[in-house]
Amino acid sequence: MIEVGFIGLGNMGQPMVKNLLKAGFKVKVYNRTPNKASEVVEAGAEQVNRPCDTVTPDGIVVTMVSNDQVLEELVYSPDGIGEKLGKDGIHLSMSTVAPDTSRRLAKYHQEKGSFYIASPVFGRPEAAEAQKLWVMSSGNQGAKERVKPIQEAMGQKVFDLGEEPGNANVVKLGGNFMIMAAMEAMAEAFNLAEKNGMDRETVAEVYTSTLFNCTVYNGYGAMIAKKMFEPAGFQLALGLKDCNLVLDEANQTKTPMPLANLVHNRLLASAAKGRGNQDWSALTKLANEEAGME
Amino acid sequence: MIEVGFIGLGNMGQPMVKNLLKAGFKVKVYNRTPNKASEVVEAGAEQVNRPCDTVTPDGIVVTMVSNDQVLEELVYSPDGIGEKLGKDGIHLSMSTVAPDTSRRLAKYHQEKGSFYIASPVFGRPEAAEAQKLWVMSSGNQGAKERVKPIQEAMGQKVFDLGEEPGNANVVKLGGNFMIMAAMEAMAEAFNLAEKNGMDRETVAEVYTSTLFNCTVYNGYGAMIAKKMFEPAGFQLALGLKDCNLVLDEANQTKTPMPLANLVHNRLLASAAKGRGNQDWSALTKLANEEAGME
Amino acid sequence: MIEVGFIGLGNMGQPMVKNLLKAGFKVKVYNRTPNKASEVVEAGAEQVNRPCDTVTPDGIVVTMVSNDQVLEELVYSPDGIGEKLGKDGIHLSMSTVAPDTSRRLAKYHQEKGSFYIASPVFGRPEAAEAQKLWVMSSGNQGAKERVKPIQEAMGQKVFDLGEEPGNANVVKLGGNFMIMAAMEAMAEAFNLAEKNGMDRETVAEVYTSTLFNCTVYNGYGAMIAKKMFEPAGFQLALGLKDCNLVLDEANQTKTPMPLANLVHNRLLASAAKGRGNQDWSALTKLANEEAGME
Amino acid sequence: MIEVGFIGLGNMGQPMVKNLLKAGFKVKVYNRTPNKASEVVEAGAEQVNRPCDTVTPDGIVVTMVSNDQVLEELVYSPDGIGEKLGKDGIHLSMSTVAPDTSRRLAKYHQEKGSFYIASPVFGRPEAAEAQKLWVMSSGNQGAKERVKPIQEAMGQKVFDLGEEPGNANVVKLGGNFMIMAAMEAMAEAFNLAEKNGMDRETVAEVYTSTLFNCTVYNGYGAMIAKKMFEPAGFQLALGLKDCNLVLDEANQTKTPMPLANLVHNRLLASAAKGRGNQDWSALTKLANEEAGME
Repeated sequence: MIEVGFIGLGNMGQPMVKNLLKAGFKVKVYNRTPNKASEVVEAGAEQVNRPCDTVTPDGIVVTMVSNDQVLEELVYSPDGIGEKLGKDGIHLSMSTVAPDTSRRLAKYHQEKGSFYIASPVFGRPEAAEAQKLWVMSSGNQGAKERVKPIQEAMGQKVFDLGEEPGNANVVKLGGNFMIMAAMEAMAEAFNLAEKNGMDRETVAEVYTSTLFNCTVYNGYGAMIAKKMFEPAGFQLALGLKDCNLVLDEANQTKTPMPLANLVHNRLLASAAKGRGNQDWSALTKLANEEAGME
Repeated sequence: MIEVGFIGLGNMGQPMVKNLLKAGFKVKVYNRTPNKASEVVEAGAEQVNRPCDTVTPDGIVVTMVSNDQVLEELVYSPDGIGEKLGKDGIHLSMSTVAPDTSRRLAKYHQEKGSFYIASPVFGRPEAAEAQKLWVMSSGNQGAKERVKPIQEAMGQKVFDLGEEPGNANVVKLGGNFMIMAAMEAMAEAFNLAEKNGMDRETVAEVYTSTLFNCTVYNGYGAMIAKKMFEPAGFQLALGLKDCNLVLDEANQTKTPMPLANLVHNRLLASAAKGRGNQDWSALTKLANEEAGME
Repeated sequence: MIEVGFIGLGNMGQPMVKNLLKAGFKVKVYNRTPNKASEVVEAGAEQVNRPCDTVTPDGIVVTMVSNDQVLEELVYSPDGIGEKLGKDGIHLSMSTVAPDTSRRLAKYHQEKGSFYIASPVFGRPEAAEAQKLWVMSSGNQGAKERVKPIQEAMGQKVFDLGEEPGNANVVKLGGNFMIMAAMEAMAEAFNLAEKNGMDRETVAEVYTSTLFNCTVYNGYGAMIAKKMFEPAGFQLALGLKDCNLVLDEANQTKTPMPLANLVHNRLLASAAKGRGNQDWSALTKLANEEAGME
Repeated sequence: MIEVGFIGLGNMGQPMVKNLLKAGFKVKVYNRTPNKASEVVEAGAEQVNRPCDTVTPDGIVVTMVSNDQVLEELVYSPDGIGEKLGKDGIHLSMSTVAPDTSRRLAKYHQEKGSFYIASPVFGRPEAAEAQKLWVMSSGNQGAKERVKPIQEAMGQKVFDLGEEPGNANVVKLGGNFMIMAAMEAMAEAFNLAEKNGMDRETVAEVYTSTLFNCTVYNGYGAMIAKKMFEPAGFQLALGLKDCNLVLDEANQTKTPMPLANLVHNRLLASAAKGRGNQDWSALTKLANEEAGME
């Protein structure tokens, strides 16, 4: 039975671990707040006390944490995973982080003889539960092949995005940007309809059953039509963090993205108005307010 | 055999007429440039010389023309359809026009005892050929029921959007806006990937086979990835016309739409640069140019 | 003593008439709401009952009214000024209207043998009182020379903008746009300072006593710093009208103006929120609200 | 005779040193590229070989360098000024840097018993030569009073912006943002005029002799009217750096600044197109290109 370490037991991490267990992996888990481990332990995972304890030298450890800083600490800190992974160990990094963070970590692991695979995913907690995540993957070719069974145990498809470690993160960030752009577009279109006396949900139904019949529009169309932004599937504050990463990357590579600026402004204003804990689709409230509808 | 008039034999009108013929309707057609009628005449349509000659009093006449002005002339001019339709005649207006144009025409027809049904469609010429159009429909309830077999002969689904004649046009314009917003979003995301050294088509494939697996993203994703904007399925100049209608309606109803302003600027700049005859997805060239990629 | 007709006795018109009287002109005035004439009548003007009664054939009549439609009716209606001006009469049109309105009216007057001079002004009511208006002037060269003494009686300087009748309007609209852009810029800069704990008025003072020591920044800087938008020197609803004219002209001439779009959105949202009667500098409240400061 | 250290002999630093010499100060200068010191040495300055050699313990040292990183190195490096300034020494920091850089450096100096005064200036090299700079000043009150004679020797006015060290930088960044916004506004207005057949310089003259008769509009109006962006008084690449600092601060303090986003996009696109070495007013070329005018 193959052993896998797994660090980060949030809304996404927990169902991902369960799917690894179902697929027959032996999983050692670590979470900063230990009591979040109870469900996966019940499902068969072994809980350990330090990040480094999840590591089997030359084995594989998965990280799924909330931001770049937490991820870097997990690797570099004295009881972190960096030293212990050792020659041929693999760090399968599934968090949404900056491409530069991946580049830096890949270099660090390379110096230790270990490997770093950037592997963020598309999909919300329900998709994680249903083993329906879409998994990006970039980094060393051999290492990618070794982690593929693990990725497949958690998702419906793995996309190989080349050897450059930052690639998977760029694609993930671009996707999150496209989701936010789609939200703003829906909000504006639904508002135009509402201002003309129409029912928002009827209109949402027209769009999402025809031209825009896909996950993002179906998932968020109903929320935006109903103006219901809680409970938060993905917090607006995290969306703002991701949008900042998008714009940092855009700035670095000299890629003007005016639509990304627009949604960034929506997120920033939402945060300033105290909506950081709502679902990120709450960015569309600004359009409603500007139309005098709230 | 039910008789139907049909005016406007462009890229859309021709396949629509053919489907009416296939469904067993007798169709009298008129087009300003007469020689465009040859194909549908061969398929069984009868060509007439004046718009009014397509009309059977108390019958149904379909219009599918290029803009609001042409449509209004077709109705009001001496040899137009307005007078002759008479009591209980129906004008099934399938062009993309302003909601106000529909409101005005509906009022005019009402005064004559006839009916006006606003019925724009989603779908490009290929969809028209395959009888896969999505058909919006708004106006008098009884009249909507009478035209439904005609709409169904041309499309895969009819959406009833209420009795207000402008509604179907609002939804159509909102949809076209959402398409343009999606194009801009894809362009910016693909550019970010390209600037990071990735292949645009690979990235487009990731997005359109996962979160954005729907008509609009699949259809335009490949074009925008390849930066190929000809031949024009739908001309940029027509997209600009539609975007102007969106913003007029937004202005009238006090609905700020900053994302619509963004795509409008893209279209306007594209027109200023002489790209009016390219496909409307060519609006994305601006993003490429701003990134220094052209 | 030279006779001049004057139509439109609003906040601007009244002080302008008084200055004409001071300069020794004989002035016949008309206003739709007659009781607004009392002050200028007391100052020596003669009030008449119909627009056409202000006209001396082959003389000069000044119009200063609220929008394009009112202006066109004043000219074309049966008791309007158009017919009566006659050969060599001059219509000195000082309202802020669309360039196309000027072009149309100039053509109409030319057909009658009369002249149309577009002559909008920069300056608020206080400037009008103090004879400090800046006066734009475009149209037929000879006619411009004939009206110059009248313009000079009301302003501090006359700018000759050529023979094309719409030119003066284009420059006026461009100026109003630049004012609104300056307001938005100040609001954003003052907000950044306030969010850093600074006093807005101190910061406004720094900018307006150094790099931006001019009428617009001095005049609006204090209002925006204090967030005081009443009483309205110039109503936001009128600013929105002008911004619409700017964007119409931009659209027609294929001149993308993204900054004009930005301020237009501010104005439109302000109108949607019921602020049409406040001073147009109230467009800056949106920036304050987005920053979570209201 | 009071001794002053001065580090950074670029376009601004050289005339500033000359004015200090004229005012009777003894000035020790350091520049990374030593041969830039020749003119000020001829004028009476003493050139030294290391940053720390400009420092008189408990004296005053002025820095005027190109960016945050260079400034921080000057303070922290082994032969930097930080250690040697000692108790009661003052670092008068006149570069345009991030408020956070000032906050960090102020804290460092405080720990050493020395003082940090943030003191960026408004004005181009010509203004520096003419002793016409406007000087911002924030930091410890007593220290501000000690440096005031030095600031006055270089400028026409000193603005006291409180004790928070970052304040002067916030005001400086806000001012640079307002300049860039004014440039974009002029470009759009001039383009609208040009597209209507008017002469840009005539139109610029109207605006800058009336509503906008101030340094920024007069200085840049002519350049933007003529579309002449070389030689570079202030390089576009530096404008982009400053705009990034503005947006970082806006992001940190949750202050949405959509107009700052707009000009940032102009700068970023200009940099992507290889215009980083032109004058920052070249950001307006984008508007010209979008209008199809280049």
